[in-house]
Amino acid sequence: MHKYRFENDYSELCHPAVIEALGRMGTRQFAGYSQDVISQEAVALLRDIMEKPDAGVHFLSGGTQANLVGLGWMLSPIGAVVAADTGHINVYEAGAIEATGHKVCTVPHRLGKLDLGAMEKLLEYHQQEELVTPEVVFLSQSTELGTIYRKSELEGIRTFCDRWNLLLFIDGARIGAAVASDISDVQMADIAEVADAFFIGGTKNGALFGEALITVNPKLDKGFRSFSRQRGAMLAKGYAVGVQFRELFRDGLYFELARHANETARTLCDGIGKLGYRLWQERESNQVFPVLPNEVIAELQKLYGFYVWEKYDKDQSVVRLVTSWATPAEKVDNFLSDLPAA
Amino acid sequence: MHKYRFENDYSELCHPAVIEALGRMGTRQFAGYSQDVISQEAVALLRDIMEKPDAGVHFLSGGTQANLVGLGWMLSPIGAVVAADTGHINVYEAGAIEATGHKVCTVPHRLGKLDLGAMEKLLEYHQQEELVTPEVVFLSQSTELGTIYRKSELEGIRTFCDRWNLLLFIDGARIGAAVASDISDVQMADIAEVADAFFIGGTKNGALFGEALITVNPKLDKGFRSFSRQRGAMLAKGYAVGVQFRELFRDGLYFELARHANETARTLCDGIGKLGYRLWQERESNQVFPVLPNEVIAELQKLYGFYVWEKYDKDQSVVRLVTSWATPAEKVDNFLSDLPAA
Amino acid sequence: MHKYRFENDYSELCHPAVIEALGRMGTRQFAGYSQDVISQEAVALLRDIMEKPDAGVHFLSGGTQANLVGLGWMLSPIGAVVAADTGHINVYEAGAIEATGHKVCTVPHRLGKLDLGAMEKLLEYHQQEELVTPEVVFLSQSTELGTIYRKSELEGIRTFCDRWNLLLFIDGARIGAAVASDISDVQMADIAEVADAFFIGGTKNGALFGEALITVNPKLDKGFRSFSRQRGAMLAKGYAVGVQFRELFRDGLYFELARHANETARTLCDGIGKLGYRLWQERESNQVFPVLPNEVIAELQKLYGFYVWEKYDKDQSVVRLVTSWATPAEKVDNFLSDLPAA
Amino acid sequence: MHKYRFENDYSELCHPAVIEALGRMGTRQFAGYSQDVISQEAVALLRDIMEKPDAGVHFLSGGTQANLVGLGWMLSPIGAVVAADTGHINVYEAGAIEATGHKVCTVPHRLGKLDLGAMEKLLEYHQQEELVTPEVVFLSQSTELGTIYRKSELEGIRTFCDRWNLLLFIDGARIGAAVASDISDVQMADIAEVADAFFIGGTKNGALFGEALITVNPKLDKGFRSFSRQRGAMLAKGYAVGVQFRELFRDGLYFELARHANETARTLCDGIGKLGYRLWQERESNQVFPVLPNEVIAELQKLYGFYVWEKYDKDQSVVRLVTSWATPAEKVDNFLSDLPAA
Repeated sequence: MHKYRFENDYSELCHPAVIEALGRMGTRQFAGYSQDVISQEAVALLRDIMEKPDAGVHFLSGGTQANLVGLGWMLSPIGAVVAADTGHINVYEAGAIEATGHKVCTVPHRLGKLDLGAMEKLLEYHQQEELVTPEVVFLSQSTELGTIYRKSELEGIRTFCDRWNLLLFIDGARIGAAVASDISDVQMADIAEVADAFFIGGTKNGALFGEALITVNPKLDKGFRSFSRQRGAMLAKGYAVGVQFRELFRDGLYFELARHANETARTLCDGIGKLGYRLWQERESNQVFPVLPNEVIAELQKLYGFYVWEKYDKDQSVVRLVTSWATPAEKVDNFLSDLPAA
Repeated sequence: MHKYRFENDYSELCHPAVIEALGRMGTRQFAGYSQDVISQEAVALLRDIMEKPDAGVHFLSGGTQANLVGLGWMLSPIGAVVAADTGHINVYEAGAIEATGHKVCTVPHRLGKLDLGAMEKLLEYHQQEELVTPEVVFLSQSTELGTIYRKSELEGIRTFCDRWNLLLFIDGARIGAAVASDISDVQMADIAEVADAFFIGGTKNGALFGEALITVNPKLDKGFRSFSRQRGAMLAKGYAVGVQFRELFRDGLYFELARHANETARTLCDGIGKLGYRLWQERESNQVFPVLPNEVIAELQKLYGFYVWEKYDKDQSVVRLVTSWATPAEKVDNFLSDLPAA
Repeated sequence: MHKYRFENDYSELCHPAVIEALGRMGTRQFAGYSQDVISQEAVALLRDIMEKPDAGVHFLSGGTQANLVGLGWMLSPIGAVVAADTGHINVYEAGAIEATGHKVCTVPHRLGKLDLGAMEKLLEYHQQEELVTPEVVFLSQSTELGTIYRKSELEGIRTFCDRWNLLLFIDGARIGAAVASDISDVQMADIAEVADAFFIGGTKNGALFGEALITVNPKLDKGFRSFSRQRGAMLAKGYAVGVQFRELFRDGLYFELARHANETARTLCDGIGKLGYRLWQERESNQVFPVLPNEVIAELQKLYGFYVWEKYDKDQSVVRLVTSWATPAEKVDNFLSDLPAA
Repeated sequence: MHKYRFENDYSELCHPAVIEALGRMGTRQFAGYSQDVISQEAVALLRDIMEKPDAGVHFLSGGTQANLVGLGWMLSPIGAVVAADTGHINVYEAGAIEATGHKVCTVPHRLGKLDLGAMEKLLEYHQQEELVTPEVVFLSQSTELGTIYRKSELEGIRTFCDRWNLLLFIDGARIGAAVASDISDVQMADIAEVADAFFIGGTKNGALFGEALITVNPKLDKGFRSFSRQRGAMLAKGYAVGVQFRELFRDGLYFELARHANETARTLCDGIGKLGYRLWQERESNQVFPVLPNEVIAELQKLYGFYVWEKYDKDQSVVRLVTSWATPAEKVDNFLSDLPAA
């Protein structure tokens, strides 16, 4: 039994307020498939925060599902999606996008982000009928490395998409961490402004389960619900997710929880730095990537759960530490006490 | 606002005991992807009830998903699934099976059930390479018409499958209603004995959400978890479903709830009969299909939610009334009071 | 060794003029992928005959391929194709359409043709998001039973398609037999006028191999060549098919060959009638479906190749006899001599 | 009009002997779908040359089709194919493999060949259920860069496959050039010995069209014909391809033609070297990749057809020159005369 898991941000079920909101529903009856009043209230709240009164809002059960349903719907039969090589869809989804029939074209990442120069080359090359046709750009905000696209970067990518006639999809499994970060200048409305579609992750930020897939581009609306059913993504009890999003966004709880995760990661990160270890890269949200000696790692793994990300050199490795909305300050203190100075 | 919804059995969130079980988890940390201890306890309980100590148990979020993930995994690229024309996969899943690349070959149903004679003809015909190759038989227990396969019928289908070298998949979205019915001689272990794979539905019988997909045939195990991820069906918080199944199966709550739904349907059915209406077919579980005059239907629809199933004759139609684990006796009384005598 | 095969219309390689045209190409060099001058001449000829100067013309290798590439391109991810239950795509293509992810919704045929009443019911029913969305109507001209849609029937189907916002695809594997039939009032231009896309079959009417897929609807053009490559349907030596279509359509050889097949079938049909046998249905092109006693069939099968189509009654069966562009008159005479009077 | 096309090896229709063989078939009737006697003779010849008396032999129409039908059949739903980043399936087939639902995992090529070290790393990494499961290794012989795997290299890859439980598929679109090369120690039987499946390309080596897909591994046989139909790859007139392979392999014409292409490329390559230009890489078969100044390229492109492969430096580029079974010696002389000395 570990003292604490820093493996990911879905190790705890959900915020107590979510359980309470679920409990209050009792045996009241609701219409199925998100056609109920509570889901509609959640939709209204999200539209308001996004400043998109006509956006489509669809409650789904998980992140891989949101990616495959969103991208599978946006792509034509010859279409491919462009992603950073670190993109979740390119690695950790067991070929979910390819299983919808589409290639993921990758460009080398820069701190987990898309590089416009590399994308430009890829697009220039892909103007031939024997190659797949890039149709959608995929990015994660925050990224798989915990970094955060700034507003100007997102606008640059949107301009790029417009120039090359591409749609933009944003994986927001950790969108809360991105908008709640002290270094971030991006709000929900900014993301809704640049993306054709994206999702707001509940699973990793206080919900029991569920993601809200947003279709901003009105061309994506017609038929989407049917597609979602076909892929097994439409929940009979849509209201079970709707009520959670209503709770999380009613008074800003969602952002508060994300802020806690980020702050806790900052404390962790600062402490590791003070102990004399370098960071593999700057911390920007709730993921910390320190470089530690292999024997230190071995000792720590007896006490804590976390992933070794990659080899750094002969003697050291990069590890990933993730904090969540629920991580107690004392667990960070414990970790820092158990980590010997460099 | 309706007095009551008889539209389906997923209009109420879940049994209070489920909420309580979720609440008790607090901020305790669990391993992801159903690798946690609570899920393992739920798995052990289900294996015990099924009398299959080695069965694979996989927690998914919904019924269409369970069907497409199960069948998509069982079929080879040339394989087709054989189903009754009333089969859920053939009608109400927006082409989910075809989207996995496979044809659904249908035979005319008999009271919602598969007809062995019709299947025999289909199999005899499909022995040519220019036709799809039937590889899996699909049935729902209870069926889409609320009927229940008896033990001998299931054994007959299993024998048929063995003779034609077919696998058997059972949609158990309403498996509780089937095993808890007073007319049923089928237990969970009987279903596990005949099926290569099936699922135990939580969504329609007291759980907040979630289905348990069971792979009885050991050949289906290797690689299945990866396939489940690929189709967006593996939940990061598998324990959120695991804890519900543990609660529902720990002391037989699952069967108790199904029994309530069935009993309530019987009361409803008897009452309708006493008022002088005929049934489109015998009631066997929690679905009732009376034949009512169209003007009566129009009046009732102002008060109650339910579906008109099909036209019966010029003046009458078949309607479907579904009761659930939560349907109060008084709502049935209300309905019967509001229904004028024939 | 049979005296003659009446099994199908692709038992003979091709018309001698086609071989000669191929031979005249020598080692002259051509651009690949149908970008050559000869293919462009063939395209111009076909556009002229179809009276569609802007139609897309794509040379493919076979009929199943033309169906799956055409329909796969026309359908959105939620789309289904509507076909008669006798439709080639529903039966004899080993699930090719489903393998592209789409359901084939069937209506009972009437003499191998689509029935508008049945289609109307299907469309009315399919206005729900949980069902697949019919997007394309499929028909074969001539049909799988050798019958031919009259001009007014095609126009009726086109009107139906417009009303229900459907596209129309026509399988023209035997389009020659349809337009060259004495009972037909349909020309190539009529087919091009009603269809969004169709194909002109070479394989069954004098070509060595190859079909010309026609996209009449300009919305289908952009990206189609890339899709055709993706499905393995684009031939490196497109000119090998182009030269054949140029030869077949330059001076009407295509129609002449089809007329021969039809006339030969008529002789065969008349002779069978004179011997006292009934027809399962009227002959309209190059397929004849007489009803013969089972013992007569058994004797004939020692001498001739043909398919037993289906059981007619206890003692008799329907057989299918197909004539081709190459069937010699004497083989028909032989067959009629070998067939005992009823 | 160019003096000559060095763009590819499918600019000329076919060897005259092939046309003659086709012509000799006249209007003789044959069974469909490669069940005819001539195809069976061709099958016997190929089995003999491959020294695999039980190999499956399937005649298809083109290379992309052979790749997608072969790999689509070999892969399970979670399976991925491992290829060099230069692999034809990864680039020039418009996403054909992904359209069958499978990811192409790439490793950096070494002279167009697979690198075992890179593959080892990829396999070690891919032992997690959230990643795709490598199941098949893909290579081209000769490669897309004209290089040729030596016998020991193929054996090394086979050993690697066995160790990691992978199947091996070989794209033999230019297999003739590989076995007929003066630098090659590989025979057809060697390829059949290491591969689970591969294809022998006709299109690029003297046939009018057609490839012979070989299934060496007997586990791949059952059901393959049905899959081939489903993907539109089975030709009604299989005998039209069968007769060509019989002709090409009856007396070694296939190898003779490949030798001519290779020899012609050698002459071209030597001449370019004598004029003082460097090669981007060694020539091993019928493809030559010289580095030429951009202005020289511009002049040559007015006279000859060929592709600019990639930028070499600011002033020079790599071009690709391909010779074929039909390239006349004088065209090479012309080219060398028109190419100014460095």
